[in-house]
Amino acid sequence: MTFQKILIANRGEIAVRIIRACRELGIATVAVYSEPDRESLHVRLADEAYCIGPTLSKDSYLNITNIISVATLTECDAIHPGYGFLAENADFAEICESCNITFIGPSADAINRMGDKAVAKQTMQDAGVPVIPGSDGLVEDLNEAVMLARDIGYPVIIKATAGGGGKGIRIAEDEETLVKQITNAQQEAQKAFGNAGVYLEKYLTGMKHVEIQIIADKHGNAVHLGERDCSVQRRRQKLVEEAPCPVLSEEVRSRMGEAAVRAAKAVNYSGAGTLEFLLGPDGQFYFMEMNTRIQVEHPVTEMVTGIDLIQEMIHVAEGNPLSFSQEDVVINGWSIECRINAENPDKGFMPAPGTIQFYLPPGGPGVRVDSAAYPGYTISPFYDSMIAKLIVWAPTRDEAVAKMRRALAEFEIEGIHSTIPFHQKLLKHPTFLKGDFDIKFLEENEI
Amino acid sequence: MTFQKILIANRGEIAVRIIRACRELGIATVAVYSEPDRESLHVRLADEAYCIGPTLSKDSYLNITNIISVATLTECDAIHPGYGFLAENADFAEICESCNITFIGPSADAINRMGDKAVAKQTMQDAGVPVIPGSDGLVEDLNEAVMLARDIGYPVIIKATAGGGGKGIRIAEDEETLVKQITNAQQEAQKAFGNAGVYLEKYLTGMKHVEIQIIADKHGNAVHLGERDCSVQRRRQKLVEEAPCPVLSEEVRSRMGEAAVRAAKAVNYSGAGTLEFLLGPDGQFYFMEMNTRIQVEHPVTEMVTGIDLIQEMIHVAEGNPLSFSQEDVVINGWSIECRINAENPDKGFMPAPGTIQFYLPPGGPGVRVDSAAYPGYTISPFYDSMIAKLIVWAPTRDEAVAKMRRALAEFEIEGIHSTIPFHQKLLKHPTFLKGDFDIKFLEENEI
Repeated sequence: MTFQKILIANRGEIAVRIIRACRELGIATVAVYSEPDRESLHVRLADEAYCIGPTLSKDSYLNITNIISVATLTECDAIHPGYGFLAENADFAEICESCNITFIGPSADAINRMGDKAVAKQTMQDAGVPVIPGSDGLVEDLNEAVMLARDIGYPVIIKATAGGGGKGIRIAEDEETLVKQITNAQQEAQKAFGNAGVYLEKYLTGMKHVEIQIIADKHGNAVHLGERDCSVQRRRQKLVEEAPCPVLSEEVRSRMGEAAVRAAKAVNYSGAGTLEFLLGPDGQFYFMEMNTRIQVEHPVTEMVTGIDLIQEMIHVAEGNPLSFSQEDVVINGWSIECRINAENPDKGFMPAPGTIQFYLPPGGPGVRVDSAAYPGYTISPFYDSMIAKLIVWAPTRDEAVAKMRRALAEFEIEGIHSTIPFHQKLLKHPTFLKGDFDIKFLEENEI
Repeated sequence: MTFQKILIANRGEIAVRIIRACRELGIATVAVYSEPDRESLHVRLADEAYCIGPTLSKDSYLNITNIISVATLTECDAIHPGYGFLAENADFAEICESCNITFIGPSADAINRMGDKAVAKQTMQDAGVPVIPGSDGLVEDLNEAVMLARDIGYPVIIKATAGGGGKGIRIAEDEETLVKQITNAQQEAQKAFGNAGVYLEKYLTGMKHVEIQIIADKHGNAVHLGERDCSVQRRRQKLVEEAPCPVLSEEVRSRMGEAAVRAAKAVNYSGAGTLEFLLGPDGQFYFMEMNTRIQVEHPVTEMVTGIDLIQEMIHVAEGNPLSFSQEDVVINGWSIECRINAENPDKGFMPAPGTIQFYLPPGGPGVRVDSAAYPGYTISPFYDSMIAKLIVWAPTRDEAVAKMRRALAEFEIEGIHSTIPFHQKLLKHPTFLKGDFDIKFLEENEI
């Protein structure tokens, strides 16, 4: 099957990214947009564009009925969900398929199995992928929690099974705190997610966030494309990502990659996906979660492998076998991505939406900009605050850092605050330069 | 020796390109500019910038006294001449050295030997590099010309030794024409260049312009970095370049590369340089000339080799040995460059200077933009008409073509005419897609 036309159920830079991939493949594109996004770049670049509702995401970018209607009326063969919005919505994947529209992503079953943290953890354990020591599934009562915590040792972390993005998480340093926090956590989870289920894990320190990109076809083939180090996080939001990871040994890299492929095969995965791991200073790694979609930081993997992940997603969604094998994947050089957001780093990263008066992205060798911004574009307060992803490639990490500093210095965005000054300071920080920062780096250091 | 500060004796995109390379190496930069270039991007990006004279190039960018004064006063260690202006001026190279400023390029002697066409040809012949059959040096009189032409066969081409850029060239199809044209050519050359010397060559047809990038250090090491096909020319001006050449066999590629290295060694070359060859449909190639400087189209070589040529020029100018050997040079994938000029392709490529009202370069994977343009920038009528070099990389030629078409389609330049519509048509032309076009392609085809 060859797609003639694809609907992109997203906005911003990822919608632009997908339109670019489609155009290079000769596939027509249909953009959808909310009322305030009428002047967006994805609307201007797509072959067709349709308004699907008012400002609020639930009325537009999450409005399954309207999106499916547009796809049907414009005779789209497939829908690419991007990230966020409907990208990990199993119902949406199922509805697409029932309407004879290919969902460019894994099956609803794979999304479901990876979407529930407890099920995901069990699935990984069964596939021989190391998981964080903790409860097998949900903690039923206080007694069980106390016994388990004695077993795995303090500190422990309590997580809501339905949580995400750092919500519903508590840490207990000792038994007394644990007893108090379990009940609080259950009540909070019930309130926030309508699901009181919590589980317990060993609380690990000095950990890096290292994730493995995988891609799989519908014929049972799955390969990994190396890792990304996404440890530079603020309130669990990634700010800077790089590939490869500066501290990973070749031996641990292979073991992580093989574990990721086993994980993908365990759920009959197809499409692009990411296995997120915590990596300890001792080289031990533990499965955290799987994102069953393309990720914001996918470009760093593209830069070091030369593989276009969005095009490969489309290729396998068409039913083709993967266009490369594990042996073909060669990691070449170094890539770093900085997320340039419309936020004021001097005021606690407060969102700073507004109109970009002057805009000139950096250029020259080894510089890639993925963005939906343009001179005169207004960053909306209603959606995420991303202005651009600035990605660089160079033969070595030192050269990539130098290139990123050069590119940040020449990126001109006038009219709104951006996180460029933060990135400029970060890229001079000795810990960042050394490469051995962990996920607490930004919490524990004044940048 | 490590350079602390470099003066860039140029303007436009190449000045910006060199500033970027210096910044990544941690080297301070000094820009120079003519009065109308006060608002140029190279002025804004450099660490320091000084006006060196009024509009006319001879009073500013060719004003050796003023440039050397700025370099001396700002304590620059070196000068990078870019291309054009003083880049192939042996006197300038000599003056730099006599002022204890490193000229980032070859020695004055190498520039001189390659700058005189007859001397260059003799040098190449001595080095065993194939040259176009023709006179050994200048043609002394009519008799000699007639005898020689009978020997090499008609048609023949008459070229002024001091000419360039297509000036002072005549073609003779038979003896009668030859007799007439020789005298005309000598008189014209005397008038135009103050040098009546002409030489004779076989006039070859169906030829491609294929050139070899070389780089050499001051320790006698020289390597080649593969070829560029620059056959898409209009009035001998290159419009599109690509690497590799679509029709070159691996065997001819090696022979050309080895010839280029021999040529470089024959003149004790150091720095980046290009050997321009004509390549016939039979795989025979002939030396045309050597450009003893960085070229406009150098990015396509950077894209397929991963080597930063400007940084390597600086590296060898500092006296370091080359940072890689011939075996390290691996050609990976395909790259194409389109020169986007402020010209109106519908009116015979008439220069169309003016102010850019809206400017948004393309982005995403595999797209590189080398430009000094920005929103509100005025393309001056006094210098070249280049707006931007648009460069793409992809694993294969077909994918690179698709990417270039995508990138051209999203490049927004409002307020002035540009050659984007020409490139869009060219990139759909069956002969271009096939790749076997020769240097007469644009003359003989309506694009």
